[in-house]
Amino acid sequence: MNPTQTMAPAQTEVEQKYKVIGTRPIRHDGVDKVTGRAVYGADVQLPGMLHGKVLRSPHAHANIKSINTAKAEALYGVKAVMTAADFPDSGSRTANLGELGEVPLKPMCDNVMASDKAVYHGHAVAAVAATSPHIAEEALGLIEVEYEVLPPVMDVLKAMDEDSPLVHEDLYTDELGEKSAKPSNVASHTRHVKGDLSQGFAAADHVLEREYRCATVHQGYIEPHAATAMWNPDGYLTMWVTTQGAFTVRTSVHQILDIPVSKLKVIPTEIGGGFGGKIPVYGEPVAAVLSRKARRPVKVVMDRTEVFQATGPTSGSYVKLKMGVTNQGRITAAETMLAYEAGGYPGSIVALGGICMFAPYNIDNTTIDMYDVVVNKPKTAAYRAPGAPNSEFAVECMLDEFCERLGLDPMEIRLLNGAKEGDIQSHGIPHPRIGCIETTEAARDCEHYQTPLEGPNRGRGVASGYWVNAGLTSSVTARLNGDGTVTLQEGSTDIGGTRTSIAMQLAEVLGIPVEDVVPSVVDTDSVGYTEVTGGSRVTFATGWAAYNAGQAIKSQLIEQAADLWKVDKDQVSLADGVITTTNGDSRSMTIKELAADLSQKGIDVGSRETVTPQNHGGAYATHVVDVEVDPDTGKVTILRYTAVQDAGRAIHPSYVEGQMQGGVVQGIGWALNEEYFYNEDGLLMNSSFLDYRMPTSLDLPMIETIIVEVPNPGHPYGVRGVGEVPIVPPQAAISNAIARAVGVRLGDLPMSPQTVVKALSAKS
Amino acid sequence: MNPTQTMAPAQTEVEQKYKVIGTRPIRHDGVDKVTGRAVYGADVQLPGMLHGKVLRSPHAHANIKSINTAKAEALYGVKAVMTAADFPDSGSRTANLGELGEVPLKPMCDNVMASDKAVYHGHAVAAVAATSPHIAEEALGLIEVEYEVLPPVMDVLKAMDEDSPLVHEDLYTDELGEKSAKPSNVASHTRHVKGDLSQGFAAADHVLEREYRCATVHQGYIEPHAATAMWNPDGYLTMWVTTQGAFTVRTSVHQILDIPVSKLKVIPTEIGGGFGGKIPVYGEPVAAVLSRKARRPVKVVMDRTEVFQATGPTSGSYVKLKMGVTNQGRITAAETMLAYEAGGYPGSIVALGGICMFAPYNIDNTTIDMYDVVVNKPKTAAYRAPGAPNSEFAVECMLDEFCERLGLDPMEIRLLNGAKEGDIQSHGIPHPRIGCIETTEAARDCEHYQTPLEGPNRGRGVASGYWVNAGLTSSVTARLNGDGTVTLQEGSTDIGGTRTSIAMQLAEVLGIPVEDVVPSVVDTDSVGYTEVTGGSRVTFATGWAAYNAGQAIKSQLIEQAADLWKVDKDQVSLADGVITTTNGDSRSMTIKELAADLSQKGIDVGSRETVTPQNHGGAYATHVVDVEVDPDTGKVTILRYTAVQDAGRAIHPSYVEGQMQGGVVQGIGWALNEEYFYNEDGLLMNSSFLDYRMPTSLDLPMIETIIVEVPNPGHPYGVRGVGEVPIVPPQAAISNAIARAVGVRLGDLPMSPQTVVKALSAKS
Repeated sequence: MNPTQTMAPAQTEVEQKYKVIGTRPIRHDGVDKVTGRAVYGADVQLPGMLHGKVLRSPHAHANIKSINTAKAEALYGVKAVMTAADFPDSGSRTANLGELGEVPLKPMCDNVMASDKAVYHGHAVAAVAATSPHIAEEALGLIEVEYEVLPPVMDVLKAMDEDSPLVHEDLYTDELGEKSAKPSNVASHTRHVKGDLSQGFAAADHVLEREYRCATVHQGYIEPHAATAMWNPDGYLTMWVTTQGAFTVRTSVHQILDIPVSKLKVIPTEIGGGFGGKIPVYGEPVAAVLSRKARRPVKVVMDRTEVFQATGPTSGSYVKLKMGVTNQGRITAAETMLAYEAGGYPGSIVALGGICMFAPYNIDNTTIDMYDVVVNKPKTAAYRAPGAPNSEFAVECMLDEFCERLGLDPMEIRLLNGAKEGDIQSHGIPHPRIGCIETTEAARDCEHYQTPLEGPNRGRGVASGYWVNAGLTSSVTARLNGDGTVTLQEGSTDIGGTRTSIAMQLAEVLGIPVEDVVPSVVDTDSVGYTEVTGGSRVTFATGWAAYNAGQAIKSQLIEQAADLWKVDKDQVSLADGVITTTNGDSRSMTIKELAADLSQKGIDVGSRETVTPQNHGGAYATHVVDVEVDPDTGKVTILRYTAVQDAGRAIHPSYVEGQMQGGVVQGIGWALNEEYFYNEDGLLMNSSFLDYRMPTSLDLPMIETIIVEVPNPGHPYGVRGVGEVPIVPPQAAISNAIARAVGVRLGDLPMSPQTVVKALSAKS
Repeated sequence: MNPTQTMAPAQTEVEQKYKVIGTRPIRHDGVDKVTGRAVYGADVQLPGMLHGKVLRSPHAHANIKSINTAKAEALYGVKAVMTAADFPDSGSRTANLGELGEVPLKPMCDNVMASDKAVYHGHAVAAVAATSPHIAEEALGLIEVEYEVLPPVMDVLKAMDEDSPLVHEDLYTDELGEKSAKPSNVASHTRHVKGDLSQGFAAADHVLEREYRCATVHQGYIEPHAATAMWNPDGYLTMWVTTQGAFTVRTSVHQILDIPVSKLKVIPTEIGGGFGGKIPVYGEPVAAVLSRKARRPVKVVMDRTEVFQATGPTSGSYVKLKMGVTNQGRITAAETMLAYEAGGYPGSIVALGGICMFAPYNIDNTTIDMYDVVVNKPKTAAYRAPGAPNSEFAVECMLDEFCERLGLDPMEIRLLNGAKEGDIQSHGIPHPRIGCIETTEAARDCEHYQTPLEGPNRGRGVASGYWVNAGLTSSVTARLNGDGTVTLQEGSTDIGGTRTSIAMQLAEVLGIPVEDVVPSVVDTDSVGYTEVTGGSRVTFATGWAAYNAGQAIKSQLIEQAADLWKVDKDQVSLADGVITTTNGDSRSMTIKELAADLSQKGIDVGSRETVTPQNHGGAYATHVVDVEVDPDTGKVTILRYTAVQDAGRAIHPSYVEGQMQGGVVQGIGWALNEEYFYNEDGLLMNSSFLDYRMPTSLDLPMIETIIVEVPNPGHPYGVRGVGEVPIVPPQAAISNAIARAVGVRLGDLPMSPQTVVKALSAKS
């Protein structure tokens, strides 16, 4: 059993031309991380720094009648106290989101600190900066908040009821482009229609209709949020933040505090995981305002309870799915209704759930209704392939039920219906070159799937998944040093080793070892605009910027060499770090030699590059899992797990494998154990890692990985994003495995021991 | 009396076209500096940081027989001990200095830490890193060094004696290009010859021959040297250094420690003065080696005694000068011998003394002999116009003696002989467009010079000076933000407000307020190669790079606007921050509007610029000083002082005035009080600010300044360097004033009270 196989049908020839890409060098930041030298958010220390703490609502839903901070302000050691009143009035302010138009800023500001009402348990209502964290905590207890407690609504379907309590009295539904007559918890209802449902269902031999539910789950990054702000008396604000996007923090703080981006520098620290949850701001504007008031640097670090209560988990969701298939297993029609919880303010990722759910299949007739619904839970944030696991869970479970009913092989039904280049997706866009079929074939042919599973209460599950990936703007600055090495400043914060995967793409262009590229992640003043590390976009887009920088350096070196040799630049070439003439006179020198010469002359070689690539090819994954179910306790053990995925091109295969393994593990947690547990008052009861159960390495076997490489024609090296799609299949794969093991089909996540026991007893 | 006049004959028309240049905005770093937020060298704190202390030779000249560090290493809290043996063997290593060829590295390494012999009192011989500075100091006392004490030689002329003790047994004179037969303290003897001395002296009606001496003086920067090093186990070395040149530190540490520049990042802190003394490295390689051995960050901060004993003061010097003039005051010939102390290792700045000394005058026949001489004093470093004050002092004193003897006005003799464009200098290079005459005329016409001085023991002195200024390589990176402001990364460390004077040149191009440019000084990984902040080159050269960046941004904006408006780019112009069509259709938008649009689209506007300008125009100054001498005590009081100087173009007049005032004050200290006092054993006896007497604001009147602007045709805005020339005239101006006040001509510096009293009693 080899946990790391790379399967690249017909790619061997292509691969051989690369010297750096496809190798597994040690990451540039590795030593800093293993020696504890790396500085994470909470490690930031500044002279005179104060500690900020946030007072949070003890109610899930309550109007705030008044806040009295006088006693807290009087406490010795307290240097500043703030409430939402310290933010610039957000009532009428909007942000221009370009094509998305003007959006109101009030929900974003209110989520950072409640102004008129608290809409979830743990919602920030005030904050204190003091000379020690203990004094700050003590001061929180002196703040008097008068609440008018309101009934909470905690479930997406209940929130959609006519008579539900309203999270916001002034929220009206955007109902297929029309504003609703009366307020509602449904923020929007959108629809994708392709083909004709009635024709599709008429062509079906079998039709199933089922409901599927996902609980609210959290990304569970190891490092809590931490932000340090220093608001200088001259109006310049410097922030040290653990974030997925330094520029995004800059934009958000600029919007909330109404200060120019040029007076705001965000320095990203190392980041201990994000998975989408470290894109929004929470303590950042709070630290900034406290610093402005106290005239000293202020650090705000969350504890785990705050992370669970008040940062963005993913959406709890309800999915109703009706699908029809022929006796041969061809899918003829699919109709679905997706209702996703947005949390306390509008904006779930239901739209992405709609786009992804049918993407692995070519279905002629589909209708997707999508509802974005507010409830009294924290405002949701992105979580790895946001929206896709919730909807794909439904499709993949139902497909397996059809397989079992029709006696079809799960791989064959996926190959029969599998999406190909040119197929029109459910939202009307044709697929570019994709690796759906190749991925499924690799899964079908892998050693794991070809090895029979035996034993009682054991079952094998299969599921596929799709993620769109993203392009967006990325920037790097590269500069040749006098010793022939290249300094590379990257705008993308590095979560999964992208410092190196970006540097490798520059090194490949010049034919130099990646150790001769010195990458660093820099602040917002020091590199071009770069979007978040998310959407599986960094190795794709920022890597492309580095590729362009390499090309620019290459042509500058060729020009300089031509100048030196007094030949035409067309008679000079560069390969493997060596510059040579091609006119037959056999002159050559290494990049190091030329760099030393140029450095002496004061000639600068380098490039600033910004790209906004459009052709991010989507990513496919097919997973195989073997489980054993303990019928007495309901405990599900993962016996073996193989994840197969199209990476386009695996720049650094170890990191691709790491992403695949990480995604699977999070998917397993989501499938079997994780959920936000609220009591009847809407209070979160399990806001610790003891009570919110994530899988650890002791719970799991080694996750086997198979990388498929169907190069993305929209990238110089064929890269697709790899980070997100591996979280999409596990939930359904495990549900399908449980069904095969013990004969019960579970459509509600998590499939915790008590759920399994309950289903088994209902069956028997 | 107006202390800040700007005199710009016939420049008014030119000036009016500037919106930013010539104004006096508040410096960008002002608030940080006045609030104490700015981080200087000693302010750096890192987790786990150790404190390094250096053991220094108690002898001026001694062979090091052995060093035993065992007891120091055993002391609790000591984490590393080092000696020169921890440096890579420097015996045969050389550095390639381009046109200057290969130079041996041993003197540079040995100056940082003595290997085989100590050549000055305070010479570093070992170092300790410990958990506290006190433990480190205690450990120094446990290091056992066995010395063989040798006789020291402390004076340049004595060192040139045949029978002098030799500072280095293996040093041979480079005697006009030939290597001497036997070792000597004279490292080199060079010569400039112009015209025919005998013809020149034959044409003279009066000939004087005199000797002039300058004591060793120190720059006296307020902030001692401080360096923090973190040598990571992966081989990457990061250093925080108070320095005039981050890239120079990188090069020096690379050379001494033999590590690639790409594995070495130098982060310049704020700097509390340098004046040339913060170009060489001292504690930097020591901190690095200690960090490597201790595997922890190490900070090495000097105290004031260490700064005096072991950093680089300027050369003590001996100048013999013979000049001939006609009855009308025309200088017909000048012959001079310059002998400058290099300190413990070769390399004084005598060559610059030779180049500058006759530059204010057009003299047909000159011969200059220059000697670089080692003595048992610290290796000299640059000090503001290095070399020029020592030699100019002689010329300007003697010229005044001629004036007095011939009854000529000091201004008229300077105008009569004054250098003009095209005149051939003493080293054979013709003058470009210079402002020597204009500066002298402005001094002659100023209110101070036109106001008679009255009273007993009072006298007025005049002197001129010249400094070559420098060009060299400078880099910036500029980037347009979405709000229309520009982020500007500068490679030049900012000593005198250059963050702002550079930013102003970019702002001028775009026609935006300088407050809309956000400049920062960045580390060696974050900007193109940039030479030291020195040679009065930063506003000239780095400002030029910023000008180029502004032009690049301007043309990118014009192209983008043309694209948007679908017109040819030739039909678009940019002025005063507004882009308009020139084809008559009257379209326009502000830079801010266009920037917002481009930012939405992910289009990056900016530029990386590196320049190595050659046409740095030289700078001239003429000073007028009134003194009163107390005949009983010999104390000289400065009654009034006016400095007149050609700035070419004063980008920020306040900073030009500040440079002029600062240079004058240092020159006054040099003239009247400052000197290194060594006892007969070669031990420095006055290594504190109590005993080494620098002038304070209480000792001085407001220094009046008059800026002359003769634009340098070799710069887009006409900038010349301004920082150094103001230290050249004061010494002679004050000597001349004393002569006019009490009738004694003093040729030895400093002209301290006891010197004046002695001269007065010798006269009477």
